[in-house]
Amino acid sequence: MVSSSLAAKAEEVSNFLLSNGMEVVVIPDHRAPIVTHMVWYKAGSADEPPGKSGIAHFFEHLMFKGTKNHPAGEFSREVASIGGNENAFTTADYTAFFQTVSPDALPTMMRFESDRMRNLTLTDAVIGPERDVILEERRMRVENDPEALLSEEVAATLYQNQPYRIPVIGWMQEIEKLNREDAVAFYDRFYAPNNAILIVAGDVTEERVRALAEGTYGKIARGPDLPPRNRPQEPEQNAARTVTLSDARVGVPSYGRSWVVPSYQTAKNGEAEALDLLSEVLGGGAQSRIYRELIVNQGIAVGAGAYYEGTSVDPTTFSVYGAPRGESKLDAVESAVDKEIARIQNEGVTPDELDRVKKRYLRAMIFARDSAEGLAQIYGSTLATGGTVKDVAEWTGRIEKVTPQQVQDVAKRYLVPERAVTSYLLPKGGSGAVAESGGPVQAPAMVPPRPGQSADKVEQP
Amino acid sequence: MVSSSLAAKAEEVSNFLLSNGMEVVVIPDHRAPIVTHMVWYKAGSADEPPGKSGIAHFFEHLMFKGTKNHPAGEFSREVASIGGNENAFTTADYTAFFQTVSPDALPTMMRFESDRMRNLTLTDAVIGPERDVILEERRMRVENDPEALLSEEVAATLYQNQPYRIPVIGWMQEIEKLNREDAVAFYDRFYAPNNAILIVAGDVTEERVRALAEGTYGKIARGPDLPPRNRPQEPEQNAARTVTLSDARVGVPSYGRSWVVPSYQTAKNGEAEALDLLSEVLGGGAQSRIYRELIVNQGIAVGAGAYYEGTSVDPTTFSVYGAPRGESKLDAVESAVDKEIARIQNEGVTPDELDRVKKRYLRAMIFARDSAEGLAQIYGSTLATGGTVKDVAEWTGRIEKVTPQQVQDVAKRYLVPERAVTSYLLPKGGSGAVAESGGPVQAPAMVPPRPGQSADKVEQP
Repeated sequence: MVSSSLAAKAEEVSNFLLSNGMEVVVIPDHRAPIVTHMVWYKAGSADEPPGKSGIAHFFEHLMFKGTKNHPAGEFSREVASIGGNENAFTTADYTAFFQTVSPDALPTMMRFESDRMRNLTLTDAVIGPERDVILEERRMRVENDPEALLSEEVAATLYQNQPYRIPVIGWMQEIEKLNREDAVAFYDRFYAPNNAILIVAGDVTEERVRALAEGTYGKIARGPDLPPRNRPQEPEQNAARTVTLSDARVGVPSYGRSWVVPSYQTAKNGEAEALDLLSEVLGGGAQSRIYRELIVNQGIAVGAGAYYEGTSVDPTTFSVYGAPRGESKLDAVESAVDKEIARIQNEGVTPDELDRVKKRYLRAMIFARDSAEGLAQIYGSTLATGGTVKDVAEWTGRIEKVTPQQVQDVAKRYLVPERAVTSYLLPKGGSGAVAESGGPVQAPAMVPPRPGQSADKVEQP
Repeated sequence: MVSSSLAAKAEEVSNFLLSNGMEVVVIPDHRAPIVTHMVWYKAGSADEPPGKSGIAHFFEHLMFKGTKNHPAGEFSREVASIGGNENAFTTADYTAFFQTVSPDALPTMMRFESDRMRNLTLTDAVIGPERDVILEERRMRVENDPEALLSEEVAATLYQNQPYRIPVIGWMQEIEKLNREDAVAFYDRFYAPNNAILIVAGDVTEERVRALAEGTYGKIARGPDLPPRNRPQEPEQNAARTVTLSDARVGVPSYGRSWVVPSYQTAKNGEAEALDLLSEVLGGGAQSRIYRELIVNQGIAVGAGAYYEGTSVDPTTFSVYGAPRGESKLDAVESAVDKEIARIQNEGVTPDELDRVKKRYLRAMIFARDSAEGLAQIYGSTLATGGTVKDVAEWTGRIEKVTPQQVQDVAKRYLVPERAVTSYLLPKGGSGAVAESGGPVQAPAMVPPRPGQSADKVEQP
């Protein structure tokens, strides 16, 4: 059975605190001589002070600069020289750094990683040029990309009060003003062992990780006690909204519709699990209702689907999206998706369909967990958003318990037209939902508008 | 000439600081034995900490509670017993308290008003019941009023980063949590002589006001030095947005369209003055282009117009609005307004038309200034948003200097469709801009949607 094998794996996971408050998770997996070493900070763009958007991501960049003990670049060169991988990413809720290396390199990784937790050299000479790098990154990834621009406008419209409204990379005019003072304040507030989670997954034992962690991270002084992450919450939303971006660079039009829904951290009574399954039933891949109806049966869409970003501290986004094929119209795609939503709201899903979806969904999760990196990612994102090791262990069982009624209920409760934000990405000259789809028959690399910011990652290039 | 009479009046105004940093403006006007006494605090909803929306307005209420020296209600009873008027209001940028009384009551007013600047008794017993009053106020004024609900959603959509996005009265779920600690923190931060402006207008002399002010407000210790009001600013806006509210309580549909534009504080090169005149030309009353075309010539609207809210610390709102008459359609009204905007953008305004509009506009301002209260209001709102006494004195001359080219320029630069938020207030069952106007011919008390929050006032009932 699917669940027992995952549960068994979860049981081997150990979880303890260092004396300075740093949480440690060890996920032994001896199939391959490899280890993933990750440090997650509970600090993302939604934790930034007002007017300082982008500082969390900016700080992720600064972590690759020099420390008191190592010049800039030495850590990365070390990882490269032993054939390892490294990366880092920032989301609304956390910032994480990781290396995947052979097990004998783990002590070195922990020495470097713990060093930069407190010993960075933050001078104007370091910060000025890096700010220019980030401004250029924003120009490349956002200003030059109509879809990314629209995605920002959608998030700013969808979230009326939560900080998920603000892009992870930051607003241009605020990035421009970030300075040494902001960087030092962010570092001193959030980069401390008692605000960090160490995840080590792969060919290691709890004993070894514990000894190494105590000798590196364990020597760092505890930082300030941070208050709970009680961020501004959404008011009741009362109005349907649209956001339209027309741009000459757009070939095929597309649309998206998003709602604010509970996350795993805020949901009650299994609603997050039900939303996960709803997104699967509705639009999660080639077996989903939207895919079969719009792409296979009617052939009116080049791409369409649904997604839910459940792993976040605060309420999050549920979205559907679609783009017309050939001569089909965008509003026909939108109507067809609406019809599939309404069918679930009115008629629900059958127990058989839900069982098939659960199996498919859990199987996909097994693949995600079948690597040290994948497992480390699941534990890290869960713990960094307020969940526990137990939540990860019990998640499969909770998915299995979701009933057809629960799936129908969340569809009815949350996918309400009066509270939706609908976005249109149109070729220049288009005019809203009734625009011509335009252009010759082609199947572009369809990427749906990504209205939610909560799971948006800004990774190191 | 219009301007010289205003300038003459302005010259008599005196302006000085008390030793504790409190600014004083005295506007003598001996035509009637009456005096308006106002204290303005440079603290509004846009100055609130994140998650504490409503505390500025809540605090306005608390100012009517008891102090160390006077039980709750004593000040108001005193004003009433001498036949005076009193009121208070909160906007995004300031909170103000005023009494209009006979000149001999001025010392008493100053004694009471200066007393509550620092001596309020802020206990849970005071705060709990007042929070219930405010929650009820919000239910009455907002939750029960589709137009007010839509206005909130529009502001939250229009402003993507500025705090003007948050309603002055506060979000329900945040008001519910405001407590004694929040109130004390707001009081200690903002209610201090060096963050306040005293305006006395009417049958007084500078000498008398100075003596009285030194004996009352002047004895209060200076408060903490506040940093400049550098609030988060808008990013570049790239997408056209709509906000639609359908409600069974709506009889006649209406629409509004808003843009973020410079305020008097942020504008350069006379753009604020040009925006003021643009709103007059376009939709300021019965002589305006929109009124003459939609209401008089075509007869398709029961109401339509334009407004600009220029007196604010940060960029502000320019809006147009309209509602169809009888069998006319809402989208016909919208198109007709668009056409008037496009005409100004493409063809500009004639020197003759602009001269007539300036005269009309300045004449209306003379009426506004023709009372102690009106003058105090103009000086108070200007100074509390960062302007000076000189700005008030020179304003008439600056309006007179605006050229037709400047009016056309601001119309072209700011009233851009791709950055607008359009709102629709529809009867339940309506479907966006193409909804039937519905219902028998009637002329409702048309109130335009008020998309901007910046000048929204929440007054004492």
